Amino acid sequence: MLNFDLYTPTRILFGRGSETKVGSLLAGRAKKVLLHYGGGSIKRSGLYDRIKASLSEAGIDFTELGGVQPNPRLSLVREGIALCRREGVDWILAVGGGSVIDSAKSIAAGFYYNGDHWKLHLEGGTIDAALPVSVVLTIPAAGSEMSDNSVITNEETKQKHGFAHPLLRAVFSIINPELFFSLPKEQLAYGTVDIMSHIMERYFTPTANTDVTDGMCESLLKTILKNAPLILEDMENYDAWSELAFCGALAHNGLLGMGRAQDWASHKMEHELSAHYDVAHGAGLAVLTPFWMRYVYKENLPIFAQFAANVMGVGGGIRDMDSLAREGIARLDAFFTRMGLPKTLRDLGIGGDRLEEMAKKCTHRVSGPEQPVGGLKKMHWQDVLAVYSAAQ
Amino acid sequence: MLNFDLYTPTRILFGRGSETKVGSLLAGRAKKVLLHYGGGSIKRSGLYDRIKASLSEAGIDFTELGGVQPNPRLSLVREGIALCRREGVDWILAVGGGSVIDSAKSIAAGFYYNGDHWKLHLEGGTIDAALPVSVVLTIPAAGSEMSDNSVITNEETKQKHGFAHPLLRAVFSIINPELFFSLPKEQLAYGTVDIMSHIMERYFTPTANTDVTDGMCESLLKTILKNAPLILEDMENYDAWSELAFCGALAHNGLLGMGRAQDWASHKMEHELSAHYDVAHGAGLAVLTPFWMRYVYKENLPIFAQFAANVMGVGGGIRDMDSLAREGIARLDAFFTRMGLPKTLRDLGIGGDRLEEMAKKCTHRVSGPEQPVGGLKKMHWQDVLAVYSAAQ
Repeated sequence: MLNFDLYTPTRILFGRGSETKVGSLLAGRAKKVLLHYGGGSIKRSGLYDRIKASLSEAGIDFTELGGVQPNPRLSLVREGIALCRREGVDWILAVGGGSVIDSAKSIAAGFYYNGDHWKLHLEGGTIDAALPVSVVLTIPAAGSEMSDNSVITNEETKQKHGFAHPLLRAVFSIINPELFFSLPKEQLAYGTVDIMSHIMERYFTPTANTDVTDGMCESLLKTILKNAPLILEDMENYDAWSELAFCGALAHNGLLGMGRAQDWASHKMEHELSAHYDVAHGAGLAVLTPFWMRYVYKENLPIFAQFAANVMGVGGGIRDMDSLAREGIARLDAFFTRMGLPKTLRDLGIGGDRLEEMAKKCTHRVSGPEQPVGGLKKMHWQDVLAVYSAAQ
Repeated sequence: MLNFDLYTPTRILFGRGSETKVGSLLAGRAKKVLLHYGGGSIKRSGLYDRIKASLSEAGIDFTELGGVQPNPRLSLVREGIALCRREGVDWILAVGGGSVIDSAKSIAAGFYYNGDHWKLHLEGGTIDAALPVSVVLTIPAAGSEMSDNSVITNEETKQKHGFAHPLLRAVFSIINPELFFSLPKEQLAYGTVDIMSHIMERYFTPTANTDVTDGMCESLLKTILKNAPLILEDMENYDAWSELAFCGALAHNGLLGMGRAQDWASHKMEHELSAHYDVAHGAGLAVLTPFWMRYVYKENLPIFAQFAANVMGVGGGIRDMDSLAREGIARLDAFFTRMGLPKTLRDLGIGGDRLEEMAKKCTHRVSGPEQPVGGLKKMHWQDVLAVYSAAQ
């Protein structure tokens, strides 16, 4: 086990009706709130009105900024920063999924920052203050409700990059699984892959002696494998949504990666797809992850065999680890199929003409020498291209 | 799953040499620290000198109060509160195990409190401020390094009671497994039981649909079953201590009990043993827990069968759940034997003459009507007496 530093201060209020507490939770702490959200779904569902009522009852003044899109845009973040400064906002309330929360966090980080905002994301600058952020979650997927980072897309340069800082952890996040009943099935499927990926990016490690986090990763993955199909059958299954959403928050708060080297190549390879083709993050991950696994599994055969046995339930001996590992990957593939997920880049509408360009951008985030991606296997641009090519 | 409120703000710094960071972590935050500890072990090991050096290097003024005993005493807490007020202490640094940390937290709670301090513990009063507490852990067992509570013994009235409040969560806790190498084997065994009990008190629940927390409880228990015997064989096994200590912090920070009714009868029954006979908490738990299990398992046969299958590795069908459950308990018993733990009250030096008195105190914490203990099965004093009697 490696030395580690665990910090998960976000308070989670979980359960039926919990969004009605938002006003009382902010009372006495926030004077002027930015209510940040996406499109019309929270208005159609009535959530928007309930949140406004809760804020008004608590006597909290607020201004608002809607219009966050999937793969949230830098331009709206800049607009949010200017708005918050102009209106004297002292707290941001994100009502939405990962895109809204990430947009809110980026605004929070930029509020006190005087440099070029994009550089924070691109070069990983530093901040010493941020506006406090709270969340009412509408999609369990990104884990941003408990994580310390924000991923923003620069639509001009077609770059998508994360910025992480302890100050970006939400003060509190409200998770009511009833709010997920009206999601389309594809959002369930994409969210499921994103949550699983947050766990697997940490699970597939070169580090030894990681029993605690191995076991938690495996049990959460098994919980997802059981419950996501139950939701697919009945989109109003409260208990199954509860399990998935609880997994979503824990998957990305940092706990599961403590004491172990992490990978993150799949996420970085996917960010190129989203930046260039605006595909859903979960859809891109569903395509790339199994191809990445087949490309790298021999780097650490035992952890892939362990995944097959302990997560995917492949029985029998472990004397032929290669077959065991491959059967584990095949079963993950089958699970993704069952969830109705895309299998190839073609399914995402991505042709072969920009693969090399994306592969090179993936490992050349900033100018200068190449920065290979991945903690399990160091992936150079040629490796990334090989995965993209296999996934065509 | 029940609605829940999760809050685990304690930062954990884990790994070799991490205690040397204590000064830099407190610099700029603490002006006058109370260094709180137990007996001479931290002086003999050199830890005391290293901590003092780290504080001095960071230019932090401190005063000190040693002498914390196992089952930490109310009288020393009162002395600590007076000392902190007199010396203008603004931060408490607990260097020790659960007793030292609990003593520190109780002092922290009492610093701003004007009522009778014991009433906080006895009647669960409320506070609106507390001194910040930080920890350098020397025994993984009590989980107080990440929990929100403090258990104190009133040596005059022979009562042992906990007080819990979010303000009692440590700001940061430092866990260096190397500090555990010099512990005696019985401390390992007692700590192992205490950690397992913190998990099992949450695991044995009447609540359904608790996949996330079931799975995490099971994986942590299995991690302990694997690693505690490895330490017993080699008290300087860093990796195995790391697994046990990580489990210890997670076992009692609240996460594993989210969304489920909890039990806690075994802990409350044990507190009477500790209060009346000053036995080690872990030793008392090792004796009582299997007898409690046999007394209550029919209340929720499926969760005890699940424990047998998923934690204790009992194979075969689940059509005879009763046998499955009993085999699970028998294997836990066998594990405790392997760890060299006591099996009966007689082994603890406890005779039969005060069992009824303890049983009645257990369910009559304060005057007035009886308050049965236990979330799985409501235990009246006669039930508690039945467990004590079986354990003789």
